[in-house]
Amino acid sequence: MNHVDVVVVGAGLAGLSAARRLSQAGKMVAVLEARDRVGGRNHGLTFSNGVPIEMGGQWVGPTQDAVLALIDELGLKTYPSYDTGQAITYYDGTAHRYSDETFGLADDDLLEVGRIWATMSSLAETVDLPTPWTTTGAADLDRQTFDQRLVSETTNDVARRFFRLVVPALFSAESHELSLLHFLFYLKSGTSLEVLLSTTGGAQQTRVVGGTHQISERLAAELGDAVHLNTVVTNITQTSDGAIVAFDGGEISADHVVVAIPQTLAGRLRYSPPLPADRDALTQQFPAGSVIKVNIAYPTPFWREDGLNGLVMSLDDSFNVVLDNSPHDDSCGVLVGFLEGRHARAAARLTAQERRDLVLGDLTKYFGERAADPLEILELNWNAEEFTRGCYGGRLGAGVWTNYGEAVAAPVGRIHWAGAETSDVWNGYMDGAVRSGHRAAGEILGGDR
Amino acid sequence: MNHVDVVVVGAGLAGLSAARRLSQAGKMVAVLEARDRVGGRNHGLTFSNGVPIEMGGQWVGPTQDAVLALIDELGLKTYPSYDTGQAITYYDGTAHRYSDETFGLADDDLLEVGRIWATMSSLAETVDLPTPWTTTGAADLDRQTFDQRLVSETTNDVARRFFRLVVPALFSAESHELSLLHFLFYLKSGTSLEVLLSTTGGAQQTRVVGGTHQISERLAAELGDAVHLNTVVTNITQTSDGAIVAFDGGEISADHVVVAIPQTLAGRLRYSPPLPADRDALTQQFPAGSVIKVNIAYPTPFWREDGLNGLVMSLDDSFNVVLDNSPHDDSCGVLVGFLEGRHARAAARLTAQERRDLVLGDLTKYFGERAADPLEILELNWNAEEFTRGCYGGRLGAGVWTNYGEAVAAPVGRIHWAGAETSDVWNGYMDGAVRSGHRAAGEILGGDR
Repeated sequence: MNHVDVVVVGAGLAGLSAARRLSQAGKMVAVLEARDRVGGRNHGLTFSNGVPIEMGGQWVGPTQDAVLALIDELGLKTYPSYDTGQAITYYDGTAHRYSDETFGLADDDLLEVGRIWATMSSLAETVDLPTPWTTTGAADLDRQTFDQRLVSETTNDVARRFFRLVVPALFSAESHELSLLHFLFYLKSGTSLEVLLSTTGGAQQTRVVGGTHQISERLAAELGDAVHLNTVVTNITQTSDGAIVAFDGGEISADHVVVAIPQTLAGRLRYSPPLPADRDALTQQFPAGSVIKVNIAYPTPFWREDGLNGLVMSLDDSFNVVLDNSPHDDSCGVLVGFLEGRHARAAARLTAQERRDLVLGDLTKYFGERAADPLEILELNWNAEEFTRGCYGGRLGAGVWTNYGEAVAAPVGRIHWAGAETSDVWNGYMDGAVRSGHRAAGEILGGDR
Repeated sequence: MNHVDVVVVGAGLAGLSAARRLSQAGKMVAVLEARDRVGGRNHGLTFSNGVPIEMGGQWVGPTQDAVLALIDELGLKTYPSYDTGQAITYYDGTAHRYSDETFGLADDDLLEVGRIWATMSSLAETVDLPTPWTTTGAADLDRQTFDQRLVSETTNDVARRFFRLVVPALFSAESHELSLLHFLFYLKSGTSLEVLLSTTGGAQQTRVVGGTHQISERLAAELGDAVHLNTVVTNITQTSDGAIVAFDGGEISADHVVVAIPQTLAGRLRYSPPLPADRDALTQQFPAGSVIKVNIAYPTPFWREDGLNGLVMSLDDSFNVVLDNSPHDDSCGVLVGFLEGRHARAAARLTAQERRDLVLGDLTKYFGERAADPLEILELNWNAEEFTRGCYGGRLGAGVWTNYGEAVAAPVGRIHWAGAETSDVWNGYMDGAVRSGHRAAGEILGGDR
């Protein structure tokens, strides 16, 4: 049996970042990846016209210092997301254009949205970021769903619909599928609700020329033969002096293991000795969101001519979050949009043609008839991906943070956990993934010193 | 490779019931069981004095016709649970004794408990039992947690505490960990809240002489060589003309497969082709409850001398649901109690001695000093059991029934799902397990006709 210092399970950003950090410190690593590609939730495709497009995580932004540094170190170039002109909030059958902080809402609705926004922002400030379960009032914040709090906060219909859109836009989950504490944690982890929802100045500010999957590809290239594709890990056995990682067709021993796959999938490996009850229970209730990402290519970004920046949020429709996703050279126009939460689940049951009709129908409402005639559509249902099983990431429902929060990132013997969901900073984002990989590597390297 | 008509994964009541029905219909079956014993969540131990005692599911009751018939067919004897004398509701530092339907509550508290009880009972009647997601108002009932509804129903402190005890007593989960729709479904599935909570006339009415694990043992004896212990299934591959079930050390082919293990664990097998997204997502969010079951043996059932039937519900304490669990011949006295939900999670972090002190301290409050000096204590933390990972069963949080309910029992190609959580009648109970096995067998037999 081969032996390495550290086996890393999963060649997404978290696993590869851990492997690189460990390798740089002189450790011999083996990265075992189930898929035939690296990158995990970063995945690039190419339109027929040759334009590369991201089917998974794609944006980076200010304060995401870990991933920004990595992008720079790897020699990748960035460019600003298109953000000139007016955005649209579509509701009650009308496209409300805006270019300020009003979201195009009527005054009384905006007042209510603003009040709730401020309340949530104040509450989010109180979260103990590395240990949300120790937040003042954590039990109360965690026993209620976000939706429960929303309903008790306001009877304003537009305000409720607004936040019932914002939650899926961030989590690919409905507002009752996560606890208030999880929502607040996520806000603080990503700085603030404003930052999370913003393009310029926020989480959607910056793109990578050619696509974010190149980050993982370049990391893997650096690691060379240490990365093993098509290697489905099944068992992790801890012994008195090490660990044995079994995969389809073989096994490899190591001093430490970094498990850098989504928490649900981590729970599906078999461990010997079995994992502690709390860790196992966490993996029973860390479901991923539901999302189908759709990129639609047009000959030109025609909406710009109409003074629109491409951003749409619709309170009426299924394909309800849309952004300009055109390449850096504007060689064609691309809109990207998301079917999230219940809309993803419903749309997944449609035929491809029915989904196309749905997407183009909604886009035509937002942007006019030119939207009905794309060059090409590329879609990806992340819930159908065997080795991801949902994006954007895992979220915690009522009660989970306070009961099992300590198990999210705590090592179990020689096993260390990485992945965007294990990071306290930029949880759920590429930056969090990179940070989690570095943290896991640090746990191992620190232990040797 | 060996071939059988049907491979059954899991030798609990569901799997064995399916196997027996199939075998009786002339099918060749193989039952693959990960443990070194059959019975799953039924498990018998023996006190040092030779008295057998159930560490898992133990009671049966009226309308549980499937399991009652099976017990009879297998030649097992039953006897009534001890139910003579007064019960205790312990709260605010006092043991309130009662022998009527008052639960020992003060009039104003009882009035409020009764009102909520009636409201829930009426709502439960509206549930579409085989298809809860089609219940009138299902979306609204499912987007709220039971606790959310409770808080909006009453500000009465005792009433809230009462229902926040009842929910863990039924689900081993806290009132915010399941949706209102799931609570209502469970009530109707088990007839009514009154039936679920009652001894005589209810779900705790009857016991099996020698223990319920004998049901599975006798089923397994009938099946003989068809039952394979210590066989951990890892993969199920469906092909154009059958299925291949792989386990540690081998594989076996079959025309059909019945997966009769808890839904979370079913999600941890690897399937080829991968399961549909909805089925997979369901297994990501079907967590089992948290429970440590504790049996405490005494020389005699001394509480009976004091006019007590042994039933305690405490609104103050951790070890808060206790019943008389003495053997049919009263050869010693046994109390059984449960640490459920948050109390189970907290108690699991204690040492065995600390847990003993906790249990005996609570029992002494309820029954006096004689409770402090048992012959022996046997405890089982079901969440630490690798091949169960929680009891009493899986429950569905806010939003899951309406989004994924159809996936609970729907076959996927040649794979059929069994287990207590897949039954619409007596869901979560032994009776539901047996029914689910018969239903799965029927799906296969029906398909051949």
